Amino acid sequence: MHILVLFFQRVLSDGCSLKSCYRNKNIQNSFDKLIRCATPFNSKFDLATVYVSDAQYNRNIFFDTSPQAVRLYLLYNHWFMQTLVYAFIIVNLALALFEDPAVVPLPIWATSTIEIICLSAFSVRMVHYAKVIPKDKFWKDPKNICIIVLSFIDLTIYGALKSTGYFAIRWSRVLRPLLLVNVTEGRQLRRAFRSIRNALPQISYVFLLFMFSVLVFSLVALKLFGKRGLLTIDGSPYFTDYLDIVFDLYVLVTTANSPDVMMPAYNYSVFFTIFFILYIIINTYTFMSFFLAVVYSNYKKHLKEEVRQLVKARRFKMCRAFSLLHEARGEGGEPVVTQTKWNHLVKLVKPNINIAHRELLWSVLDDQNKGHIGKFAFVQLADLLSIQVITVKSQPHPIQICFPSMYNSPVSRFIRYVVHQRMFVYVYDLIILVNAVFIGLDEENPVVSNAEWGFLALYMLEIILKLYATEPRAFFARHHFWNWFDTIIIVSALFGTIINSALKHCYTSRQILDIIFILRVLRLIRLVDSIKRFRAIINILIKIGPTILTFGQLIVVVYYIFAMVGMELFKGKVQFFEPNSTSPDQEYCGNPLLKGTTFAKLNYCKNNFNNVVSSFIVLLELTVVNQCGFTAVTHISARIFFVLFHIVVVIIIINIFVAFILEAFLVEYTIDKSDLQTSLEKKIEELELNVQQYVPFKPNRIELNRSIEGLLLLYFSGSRTVDGLLQRMFETDIRPEDFVEEEEPENINFSNPVFDSV
Amino acid sequence: MHILVLFFQRVLSDGCSLKSCYRNKNIQNSFDKLIRCATPFNSKFDLATVYVSDAQYNRNIFFDTSPQAVRLYLLYNHWFMQTLVYAFIIVNLALALFEDPAVVPLPIWATSTIEIICLSAFSVRMVHYAKVIPKDKFWKDPKNICIIVLSFIDLTIYGALKSTGYFAIRWSRVLRPLLLVNVTEGRQLRRAFRSIRNALPQISYVFLLFMFSVLVFSLVALKLFGKRGLLTIDGSPYFTDYLDIVFDLYVLVTTANSPDVMMPAYNYSVFFTIFFILYIIINTYTFMSFFLAVVYSNYKKHLKEEVRQLVKARRFKMCRAFSLLHEARGEGGEPVVTQTKWNHLVKLVKPNINIAHRELLWSVLDDQNKGHIGKFAFVQLADLLSIQVITVKSQPHPIQICFPSMYNSPVSRFIRYVVHQRMFVYVYDLIILVNAVFIGLDEENPVVSNAEWGFLALYMLEIILKLYATEPRAFFARHHFWNWFDTIIIVSALFGTIINSALKHCYTSRQILDIIFILRVLRLIRLVDSIKRFRAIINILIKIGPTILTFGQLIVVVYYIFAMVGMELFKGKVQFFEPNSTSPDQEYCGNPLLKGTTFAKLNYCKNNFNNVVSSFIVLLELTVVNQCGFTAVTHISARIFFVLFHIVVVIIIINIFVAFILEAFLVEYTIDKSDLQTSLEKKIEELELNVQQYVPFKPNRIELNRSIEGLLLLYFSGSRTVDGLLQRMFETDIRPEDFVEEEEPENINFSNPVFDSV
Repeated sequence: MHILVLFFQRVLSDGCSLKSCYRNKNIQNSFDKLIRCATPFNSKFDLATVYVSDAQYNRNIFFDTSPQAVRLYLLYNHWFMQTLVYAFIIVNLALALFEDPAVVPLPIWATSTIEIICLSAFSVRMVHYAKVIPKDKFWKDPKNICIIVLSFIDLTIYGALKSTGYFAIRWSRVLRPLLLVNVTEGRQLRRAFRSIRNALPQISYVFLLFMFSVLVFSLVALKLFGKRGLLTIDGSPYFTDYLDIVFDLYVLVTTANSPDVMMPAYNYSVFFTIFFILYIIINTYTFMSFFLAVVYSNYKKHLKEEVRQLVKARRFKMCRAFSLLHEARGEGGEPVVTQTKWNHLVKLVKPNINIAHRELLWSVLDDQNKGHIGKFAFVQLADLLSIQVITVKSQPHPIQICFPSMYNSPVSRFIRYVVHQRMFVYVYDLIILVNAVFIGLDEENPVVSNAEWGFLALYMLEIILKLYATEPRAFFARHHFWNWFDTIIIVSALFGTIINSALKHCYTSRQILDIIFILRVLRLIRLVDSIKRFRAIINILIKIGPTILTFGQLIVVVYYIFAMVGMELFKGKVQFFEPNSTSPDQEYCGNPLLKGTTFAKLNYCKNNFNNVVSSFIVLLELTVVNQCGFTAVTHISARIFFVLFHIVVVIIIINIFVAFILEAFLVEYTIDKSDLQTSLEKKIEELELNVQQYVPFKPNRIELNRSIEGLLLLYFSGSRTVDGLLQRMFETDIRPEDFVEEEEPENINFSNPVFDSV
Repeated sequence: MHILVLFFQRVLSDGCSLKSCYRNKNIQNSFDKLIRCATPFNSKFDLATVYVSDAQYNRNIFFDTSPQAVRLYLLYNHWFMQTLVYAFIIVNLALALFEDPAVVPLPIWATSTIEIICLSAFSVRMVHYAKVIPKDKFWKDPKNICIIVLSFIDLTIYGALKSTGYFAIRWSRVLRPLLLVNVTEGRQLRRAFRSIRNALPQISYVFLLFMFSVLVFSLVALKLFGKRGLLTIDGSPYFTDYLDIVFDLYVLVTTANSPDVMMPAYNYSVFFTIFFILYIIINTYTFMSFFLAVVYSNYKKHLKEEVRQLVKARRFKMCRAFSLLHEARGEGGEPVVTQTKWNHLVKLVKPNINIAHRELLWSVLDDQNKGHIGKFAFVQLADLLSIQVITVKSQPHPIQICFPSMYNSPVSRFIRYVVHQRMFVYVYDLIILVNAVFIGLDEENPVVSNAEWGFLALYMLEIILKLYATEPRAFFARHHFWNWFDTIIIVSALFGTIINSALKHCYTSRQILDIIFILRVLRLIRLVDSIKRFRAIINILIKIGPTILTFGQLIVVVYYIFAMVGMELFKGKVQFFEPNSTSPDQEYCGNPLLKGTTFAKLNYCKNNFNNVVSSFIVLLELTVVNQCGFTAVTHISARIFFVLFHIVVVIIIINIFVAFILEAFLVEYTIDKSDLQTSLEKKIEELELNVQQYVPFKPNRIELNRSIEGLLLLYFSGSRTVDGLLQRMFETDIRPEDFVEEEEPENINFSNPVFDSV
């Protein structure tokens, strides 16, 4: 009676996957034990293990192969160390909240001390890295050293200038997010930056042609409208200054000033709209589509090349592991690895693997039952280990064990039968729909607020019935997303409602009510799961989820840099006054320059660069629609900041995001399943095991619960990591040559430099 | 001494390409002669000719094969008839300008008479079509008949109601643009509509999920913000009505109300921005990208299938032509077509083909000089004829003939040498740049206005020098776009400037000045041609030009329908007053309901549905940014109109446009040239003729001029039609099976019904 769930999330805990660890299964993460673990039992196996796990997780560090360095390398890759580094990076980035201009001001000595601690931690990490890889490789990539040294210099200068009362700028804050990119674990982020850098030349040609077009259109506009004495809505002359026209027409591309910029000319004569129609067709639509096309085609091209490199590097590492363990035994004395050695290796790489799973993997590789495998089969181990395998052993319900007669009574059977019916789901979908209407109604109506108790009771009943019909541990298996979702939502809502009604007689807390309302609305999401077509779309969303997170990091890096620069340029220029403030400055956001501008009229005062949080919000608004009231409060050249932001974020990054979604969608949606099934998945199917494709959200609530009553189930799916998805994307495009190339002896010194330099 | 330019544009003049016509080479397009031409000389050849030209131009009409019907079919496809039909369609569509609400009002009897004439013309065309194709096929597609009958009915009802003074709506005007789609020649447009219809199910699933997400977010917004008593900038309660929230959040997806909708919540608490950030990430970015992805993947899939059908149909028609002409003569008695018959056929299909060109085509097909070709080679004729071939015979310069000694003198030679230098182009690029600066300066400055004369002289000098160095007829060859462009721009500017300075002493006409300024600015465009990278991008633009025109028609159809509905809904609700008007209604666009709204404040009064021109402009504005002040002047349900327009135009059509540009760009930009060269182009190269790839814009001004001094030149390029581009797009994806399938006897009745129904 056991449920074994082997998840990919175990990734980070493999740093200490040596034989000694395996024996002492109770690994505690204390530093002391860790070092003991790293002591080599058999240095050949150690090295092979490192190669295999590097291949599995696509790590591309050219480490020293001396036992000493391998031990340090294992420590370097330990999840605790990696988490620590990310924690320091987050603390370092979060310092912007406390530094001037601050959300919560802290004295300079406090923020400086924290920053020094962070920088020291990075330095220690760098020293560790230097000990792992050969000296010459280390000095080839001095970016991190530069960032740390420059930060220290800036900190010193700033401290000195501030203490003597001079004006000083913390310019090195712009460099902080780059650590996120340059850290060894930031592979995905580096790849995204590389793909941007590779697309830059092509983008710049299209951009130059686009700018040429804007400049020519502006010249025509100047000549057509400049002399006609037209006025804009706020009474200023219309299209008389060339640079203003260029800027206005550039903004028209972002559609921010869409009808306004055209209205004076349109009011004068309907024929002038031809100018704007041509401009919109050529620049707003055709050129913007061109940017997407260029980004998409380049992105595809370069990513394909990178994935090819990745696959190559992975095969190469597996070949090195093979060459460490092989012995001549096959027909004609060809090198093979025996099952004993292989078992030993797998135990080292994945200490928590259960025997059934390991046996399955072996039977997939050694499909002729020879007891040993050749190089080709061995090399597949890394891919095989990346596949999520969830073994679920069916077991009787606890109630069945305690009260067998009751559980097997006709009434109990009927209940279980009903719960497993499709109708049960439909009934609850209907209840959710009715609930949606009640949520929309005024909750102060006593009927509505009492109905909420009824709904809560119905939902609790559903969970209890399901728990009765399904073995609880199977019900709460880690991959049953919706079961967890339902239970958490309902139980929290129950507690929230109880607390709220208990407190109601004293006072009503809006915060608790807000949480309860959100919890109630979240229930409705379960409706999506009932409709097959929706589930398919949601699955695509989940598949591309991890990569969207990479883009999230990318956006954070770019936003952070722009926020730092923006705060230096615009801090304090625009003031926000609380709505109940009586200050006369409130009307023009505390800056007389904004008197009478649309910016002040629309009460945009809170859109300012006065601290890092509001800066991020302004930058988000600029991403959606580029508005730039800020140019009024500083020099006109501040427009450069906004144009630059538009180019970097909207033209490049958003387009890369769209390109990624396009490509992922095409892969998931249009390519037949059979095309995507890797040779491995096919092999597992050939073995005719009771295998079901594992989908992140369970394929069907009932069918799954039913099959759990069977015997042994094995769910699997392609790896859900970004690398896995990318590899699948270009699987058909990667030439088979890439899979033999690593045989060449001159490739032994393959250092894969592409992957550790940005 | 002759220049033969065989252009694809000859397409439409092939209707009467029979033997009798060929003999009487002086075809005049009188109706009488046309009928005489159509009299069959040899009915087998007639039918074969029809098949070949149908295959060449991808016509897919299942016509009767009786000599009588074939003759009518030729008449039906005559360019004059086709032009006439399009002229009637344009007149019919243009009636909207004169009907109430009119730009230029005409009495009802006038517009009705014109419409009756147009409808009668369409009816005649329908009758003609009915005579060409079998009766049962004709009645299978009654769409056109319905449109005509419904239009007549509506016209009668409207006339009757109006004459008796009742209220009446011309609802059949919505059907007018559909004729543009349903007309036999509207193949591309029908295909675009089909690809939309095919993508609809997928789009609707994503759309439903998207709407579900919007509805859930709106519910959260209602619960979070509704009870807090927040106010929007114009003092109305913020987020208290569910349907209003849904609409506001939907508009947020179009980014039209981007920061405004968020500001009240943001001003209240910074934490509420999390709601909007999540909304923007999920709905504005992810779902909008999903729409593009769905449209793109469906578009690609269905288009590929259509092109496959197209290729199949083409091969089938060529096979039928072959079966009409073949005789058993090859090895083993396999059917072949002799050169005599083939020559005869080609003469019939393309009467204006010159012998050199025909011989070349034959040598490409019969590469072993057997004197006859098999089925496989014969089938390629349609593709071969689609290739643009421009034969240019070099000839001495007229001056060289008249004054040989002068033309060959060292000075003359030096001049010609200089003109052909790369430096000459650079110098003129520099002159254009300097000119750009002068254009930007104030033209009332006497230095600037006099400099214009200098520039004009320089440009005239350039043209004269080039004409001196290059044979004039070669210089003005039809494919030398930039030579024509330069000459027209400069000569018109010269005339304009002379007229303007002649009139200056009397009065200054802004219209003439406007034209002169635009001509001056247009000169700058030539700079683009000098930079290789820019030329490559421009070439892609030109390649996709014809298809962008198809999308133009698509947009016109959709805009027209929405304009007709919009005019009925909103006509006269918003008034525009001339800027110098003193009417007090001017402030609120003549509608008290607009008092104090942003719509009136920003002076959007001219954005109304009062006539078809302003309706089109409003719809364009709605395409760029969906703004909907109109809901204030009518019922709130008018919002449905704007949401529907957004779904149809922005979510579907604009995305199809982007999808097409993406696909075309990927084909033109990333696939190697060698992949794209069809087997035909390779064959021509194999013949080692002096062949140059013909690019729409000449590859390099000088190199081309030089090579014209050679002997015989043959430029060719893949066909530039939409079908040609599409075929190229999916060339690699079309399976070779499609090229043999037509051999099957059961396919003889292939009616290709996909291509004549929408």
